[in-house]
Amino acid sequence: MATVDLSIRARQTEDQPISYFMKAAVEHPNLISLAAGLVDQESLPTEDAKAAFDEILADPALGRAALQYGTTEGYAPLRDKILAHHLGLEGQTRAESGLSASDVVVSTGSQQLLYLIGEMLLDPGDIVIAEAPSYFVYHGTLASLGVRVLQVPMDDSGMDTDALAELLARLDRDGELPRVKMIYVIDYFQNPSGRTMSLERRQRLVELARKYSKHRTLYILEDAAYRELRYDGDDLPSIKRFDTDNRHVLLTMTFSKPMAPGFKTGYGILPTDLVQPLLRFKGNHDFGSSNLNQYVLDRLLEKGDYYRHVDHLRDVYREKRDAMLAALEAEFPAVTGATWTRPDGGLYVWIRFPDGLETGPDSPLMKAALAEEVLYVPGEFCYVKGPGRVRTEARLSFGVSTPDRIREGIARLARAARSVGLPRVSQPRLAGCRG
Amino acid sequence: MATVDLSIRARQTEDQPISYFMKAAVEHPNLISLAAGLVDQESLPTEDAKAAFDEILADPALGRAALQYGTTEGYAPLRDKILAHHLGLEGQTRAESGLSASDVVVSTGSQQLLYLIGEMLLDPGDIVIAEAPSYFVYHGTLASLGVRVLQVPMDDSGMDTDALAELLARLDRDGELPRVKMIYVIDYFQNPSGRTMSLERRQRLVELARKYSKHRTLYILEDAAYRELRYDGDDLPSIKRFDTDNRHVLLTMTFSKPMAPGFKTGYGILPTDLVQPLLRFKGNHDFGSSNLNQYVLDRLLEKGDYYRHVDHLRDVYREKRDAMLAALEAEFPAVTGATWTRPDGGLYVWIRFPDGLETGPDSPLMKAALAEEVLYVPGEFCYVKGPGRVRTEARLSFGVSTPDRIREGIARLARAARSVGLPRVSQPRLAGCRG
Repeated sequence: MATVDLSIRARQTEDQPISYFMKAAVEHPNLISLAAGLVDQESLPTEDAKAAFDEILADPALGRAALQYGTTEGYAPLRDKILAHHLGLEGQTRAESGLSASDVVVSTGSQQLLYLIGEMLLDPGDIVIAEAPSYFVYHGTLASLGVRVLQVPMDDSGMDTDALAELLARLDRDGELPRVKMIYVIDYFQNPSGRTMSLERRQRLVELARKYSKHRTLYILEDAAYRELRYDGDDLPSIKRFDTDNRHVLLTMTFSKPMAPGFKTGYGILPTDLVQPLLRFKGNHDFGSSNLNQYVLDRLLEKGDYYRHVDHLRDVYREKRDAMLAALEAEFPAVTGATWTRPDGGLYVWIRFPDGLETGPDSPLMKAALAEEVLYVPGEFCYVKGPGRVRTEARLSFGVSTPDRIREGIARLARAARSVGLPRVSQPRLAGCRG
Repeated sequence: MATVDLSIRARQTEDQPISYFMKAAVEHPNLISLAAGLVDQESLPTEDAKAAFDEILADPALGRAALQYGTTEGYAPLRDKILAHHLGLEGQTRAESGLSASDVVVSTGSQQLLYLIGEMLLDPGDIVIAEAPSYFVYHGTLASLGVRVLQVPMDDSGMDTDALAELLARLDRDGELPRVKMIYVIDYFQNPSGRTMSLERRQRLVELARKYSKHRTLYILEDAAYRELRYDGDDLPSIKRFDTDNRHVLLTMTFSKPMAPGFKTGYGILPTDLVQPLLRFKGNHDFGSSNLNQYVLDRLLEKGDYYRHVDHLRDVYREKRDAMLAALEAEFPAVTGATWTRPDGGLYVWIRFPDGLETGPDSPLMKAALAEEVLYVPGEFCYVKGPGRVRTEARLSFGVSTPDRIREGIARLARAARSVGLPRVSQPRLAGCRG
């Protein structure tokens, strides 16, 4: 009997770390998971969802339409509302934007759209430029497609566009530019670092994509999954905003974070030229995402429940972010040498431990953390394999746990870190008591 | 400015005809579509769905769990019920079957599973053997993957397994066997022909797959989407039933046909060895289909609503099938030379017109049919391109239209066919009146 034989692509497709973490979080509710990208449980909109399903399914004609097959591109009224929603965020009219609802595609979560985009644009051996660190799930997808990821350093203003310009110039000199197809950025409260790209760099990024579209169009994949989850400060225009002729930027967003993951519905606004090629792939994948869920989301947008829910979520997550940042201040004083980001939104804080204190899946810290019943995402997952990979960082999510559990989780993490060599807390407040 | 540049796979990915037909049906409700694979509209289970959503979303803990992310493989209780459902159809115990719930994977409709299976097993240049005619959407998917489809004739007992044996022997002699990875069959009320594979051929098919697994495992993809929609006669065991060591047969099914397409939920029972490789792809595609819809389907199975609904659907579709067959008898008497299948289930009748009366998208018949406001699927879509392709057949679906509209649709089709040369009806019942 022959053995299992898989396709070339299957052989380069590895387990997604996220599957492991999501499964661990779903199956071990007692573990404090600062790893899983799950959303806040208590605020999930059961009442809004129930009302919307009721309204649709109690109307026989509407209910039947929702339970029937839909179209590959998505429910037309929803696509129209998605465009209106996007333009509302941008403060633009349709005419100003030059966009139309036919540039909008609905997908099975934004992950499906990321996959379809990769499949549509990338061949084995092609190059995608991403931030360092970046979203590890998409790295796995790109590896499955045989694509090389090159990473550009980032700081608190997002991807370093000067470093990007240098990299592009070098690739051009080396004759590799024709293989560079796409720049992937998570520009709002980045997963994993929590950082947001500055206005100036957004503009610069589009300029660089235009400049280096010498051989073929250099695309920008703007993953704006977290845009609406802003807790401080003013919203920034999208990168797409600077793509005034709608040629370079593929914008992807989702209803999973601002509404509920269970609907599994994401969307994108694409360069017009790319819509039909993408829909050909989607026709092969599933010829359309859940129609019923699209009707419900359309209703939630129509009634304004969506906007009320996002407002509420901002309050919920602000409190959780604040709880995490306060706990980090308390548990990791300066003497420990640990540093972390202070995001204005999203679900993630990025912590860096002192050199030598590695965070990897087989590290002493991970073992100690699991013994303390707390889980984080090792930062090295967010870098492509190679000598430049930083091994002392971790992604801490404040999405799924309550403020109390977040505080307890950070305390457990600090105990774990101290047990494997993090400099001891000098605890100046208690110094007098201990002599 | 550079032009749009797409991946190699994108360049070999063509429009799916189904997208065109589904869009036409959705957007032109006045056209009588005997083309679209949509399901009966009136029987879509709005009340059952409303009750199930209510029960889940009115329970805050359950509702929140349903609105949260799920797992890549699917909701565990649903996967367990799917296995029980399959074994109920087979009349087998778990021990007899050797299967477990971990062999079950939930997908975004069965189409996603067909795509994932193709992506997992097939490389460009590989060969898949299918029935002639076969499901044209999957042909498009296979073409997108760079795969060659070879077709084996079928008769009223399904794929001709003698012809299959000859083809496999020839491929083996020619040294092409290592490229033959999969045999694709729709074994119950086939799309497009309505034919069902006989018991003897099911068994023979598995024997052939075993025999020709010389270089690598030769898989059978058993697409049983229509199994439960049987209107006459007794159910037949699946092909999977004969795959006693669960090594060769990938069985795919769906909730779209027996329940509602709007849930966009399908499933498969796979050889154990293939589950993890497939989930690695699904992790990249979407890391799990809509969790909420899976909770609702679990509830509908649990309460028995699912089974009551399928029973009801059988009555609904039996009447529609009978209406179509009676209308065909009336409108296409023997003198016309048209012949068609008489399916025991499913949604499709397959008609063959006399030689020379072509049905293709640019044919005079199609133009006449659209002028009469009736649409069918040209049979040539269901054959791979090449000289052996039959051009005088058509798929007629009785799924979406009412019995009256089916009768009217067949009358329109007959008028269209007569207008382009179908032999005139002698109308013996009216002969006396006309003198």
